[in-house]
Amino acid sequence: MSKHLTHTKELNKDEILQIFTYAKNFFDEKKRDDLKGKLIINIFFENSTRTRSSFEIAAKRLGADVVNLDIARSSTSKGETLYDTAANLDAMGPDAIVVRHNRSGVPKILSNYVKCSIINAGDGAHQHPTQGLLDLFTLMQKWGSLEGKTISIVGDIRNSRVANSDIELFTRFGANVILVGPPQFLPKTNLKTTYNIKEAIEISDAVISLRTQTERHQNATFASLEDYAQNFKITKDLIKDKKIFVMHPGPVHRNIDIDDEVLADERCLVLEQVKNGVAVRMGILKFLLN
Amino acid sequence: MSKHLTHTKELNKDEILQIFTYAKNFFDEKKRDDLKGKLIINIFFENSTRTRSSFEIAAKRLGADVVNLDIARSSTSKGETLYDTAANLDAMGPDAIVVRHNRSGVPKILSNYVKCSIINAGDGAHQHPTQGLLDLFTLMQKWGSLEGKTISIVGDIRNSRVANSDIELFTRFGANVILVGPPQFLPKTNLKTTYNIKEAIEISDAVISLRTQTERHQNATFASLEDYAQNFKITKDLIKDKKIFVMHPGPVHRNIDIDDEVLADERCLVLEQVKNGVAVRMGILKFLLN
Amino acid sequence: MSKHLTHTKELNKDEILQIFTYAKNFFDEKKRDDLKGKLIINIFFENSTRTRSSFEIAAKRLGADVVNLDIARSSTSKGETLYDTAANLDAMGPDAIVVRHNRSGVPKILSNYVKCSIINAGDGAHQHPTQGLLDLFTLMQKWGSLEGKTISIVGDIRNSRVANSDIELFTRFGANVILVGPPQFLPKTNLKTTYNIKEAIEISDAVISLRTQTERHQNATFASLEDYAQNFKITKDLIKDKKIFVMHPGPVHRNIDIDDEVLADERCLVLEQVKNGVAVRMGILKFLLN
Repeated sequence: MSKHLTHTKELNKDEILQIFTYAKNFFDEKKRDDLKGKLIINIFFENSTRTRSSFEIAAKRLGADVVNLDIARSSTSKGETLYDTAANLDAMGPDAIVVRHNRSGVPKILSNYVKCSIINAGDGAHQHPTQGLLDLFTLMQKWGSLEGKTISIVGDIRNSRVANSDIELFTRFGANVILVGPPQFLPKTNLKTTYNIKEAIEISDAVISLRTQTERHQNATFASLEDYAQNFKITKDLIKDKKIFVMHPGPVHRNIDIDDEVLADERCLVLEQVKNGVAVRMGILKFLLN
Repeated sequence: MSKHLTHTKELNKDEILQIFTYAKNFFDEKKRDDLKGKLIINIFFENSTRTRSSFEIAAKRLGADVVNLDIARSSTSKGETLYDTAANLDAMGPDAIVVRHNRSGVPKILSNYVKCSIINAGDGAHQHPTQGLLDLFTLMQKWGSLEGKTISIVGDIRNSRVANSDIELFTRFGANVILVGPPQFLPKTNLKTTYNIKEAIEISDAVISLRTQTERHQNATFASLEDYAQNFKITKDLIKDKKIFVMHPGPVHRNIDIDDEVLADERCLVLEQVKNGVAVRMGILKFLLN
Repeated sequence: MSKHLTHTKELNKDEILQIFTYAKNFFDEKKRDDLKGKLIINIFFENSTRTRSSFEIAAKRLGADVVNLDIARSSTSKGETLYDTAANLDAMGPDAIVVRHNRSGVPKILSNYVKCSIINAGDGAHQHPTQGLLDLFTLMQKWGSLEGKTISIVGDIRNSRVANSDIELFTRFGANVILVGPPQFLPKTNLKTTYNIKEAIEISDAVISLRTQTERHQNATFASLEDYAQNFKITKDLIKDKKIFVMHPGPVHRNIDIDDEVLADERCLVLEQVKNGVAVRMGILKFLLN
């Protein structure tokens, strides 16, 4: 068992199911003392409201102490290396460091230099394992199992750490995954790919829309976000009355990624994902630290 | 009883007196567990030292967990709507969201979309209900009752959320309120108004100086702050040895709003307001969440 | 006994040894309740990762509540004086305010205006007493006593608050201190000074490298940091196999202040200093507040 969570592959199926069993017990949103006396440091090198607060709430609900560091504004501007920042924080004796960074691989590298657990809260376009786990958890709550289900992932998949984590987990748990987007957004893959969202949705049990990572595109690949929306927005007209779940890791570009009508539809699980996110992160923290 | 506090009118007199009874019990500044296991999120879209820390201290002294979000630097820069930010935070299961925003009406709007309590920590030029309550509390501690008392409010009243909350509460509790300022700073009102601060102070039992909201004036209405001070600064020469209390919501522009000598006078209640602010906010949190 | 810690001289030797006795008991990194119900406010007017998080962890491990204020971004931009900011925070009833400021003397001045304890977390080029105490503690853990030991301090001593605190404590506890640097970096002093680092190290039991405070030099005194490194970097070639400890308050300029090989050497105590920093700050908080 890995003490770190930098990639979804570090957890086997039994470990994931154990985390989910914990998470279900945390649905009551009560404060606990499973991690009383533990210290968790959040270092976010990229701004984040929801992921940072989700981790902070998860830790505090388990009774842990939390220290938040906004590194963008401090040591690194004094020329300290990332390694030294991590080694120094580790020397202060935390039980875990939760790290988000815009460069792929940073959490994995740091895990080689610290005694505490490293938890990846998103690294570049590489992995976002806790988002992948909460997406998997959300669908398993609905379906019991992913076996035989088809899930379409729509959007800028090549630049999406969420897509990478989702794909690894969904396929491992037996789902058929379809990647939907324009050619320049699709990765090299053995999975089925298409740019026809209508066809994909027709055969899907769930569709996950991704936020277009406009900040990661140096060269505009669309004339505008509206052009993207024209072809890939999840609309009521696309899902009609079909039995299908609509998900999104947030923050949603309203009427670009998903239209208002679908966001208000009961098949849309966006807020359920957020709620589950706290419970799943509590499960992960308990699993790794207790 | 409203579960939210977005406007002073949401509380009736009995409810306000109940909050004040709680507040008096919190004067010992001891840590309690009235709100143990509760979670409060502070979202400040405007910078603030004193109000944010006052709320944070109030919540922690009651045993609640607190998560601070500086939204200016995060999600909204990713194009998320205010509604979505609130709905997402609400999905994480907080008991209350304390919100400050530079647009009037934001807390009220948010309260329609969340399950938790919304507490207004200041919205544009509209309302600052917890400041109004602590100002009322401070005067009632001194006088027992506001019946028959006269209170002058001096300064940029038209742009002051503090003035709006103070006026609603002071008049409801029986005080006579006079608004003092140059014409362009005075609102349309049924209250007595004057630009003669000397006359107003002569018949007042308390005077509340407001901070000139220079950031809300696009067109300079004075040649300089010094011109304003010339006419409206609270000076020792104005209050002489009169029995009068001097208040200010802070931060004070020294020697513009109030001169150094008056700030050091025992009739000046500025620091008492700050101290009472923590106790009153504790009373509000206990009233709304317990 | 002073209730404040603004300068190392406010603590006598017995008091320092009492703090160190506490600190040794805190090596287990367990959460305690010595300061349960106490409230500590951190105000950092200069950015800091390690000192702020060290204080925050120390306070939380003792069971205190902590409120962090990044003043750079708030009240002072509204024109409030430093005195008013402190007086207002003090009115909220904290047990201590931990303050860092880029102007010398700020913590001492504030201590005259507040009821709570003021703890100096670094003021300009003046003092950094908690760093001095953790440096002393680190060496006493190694040697038992500083009597008869020689310690070289290398670098920009004239601009170093760490050097000031170290020198006062080391000499008081019986060590012989040598100041090493180019003439423009050396203060007026009765201590031995030299620009020959090789000679200094030959007769030293410990060497403390300081970070070149490039942000405090308006006029470049070196063509480049590389020129400084050429003459004053701590290298393996300088310390060879000598019995000597190498220290640095951090953040280290790798290969400018100290080279990679020495940083990885077991005689280098940089991470031990960080670890001890939390324990010593816990000792200080317990000593001042309990």
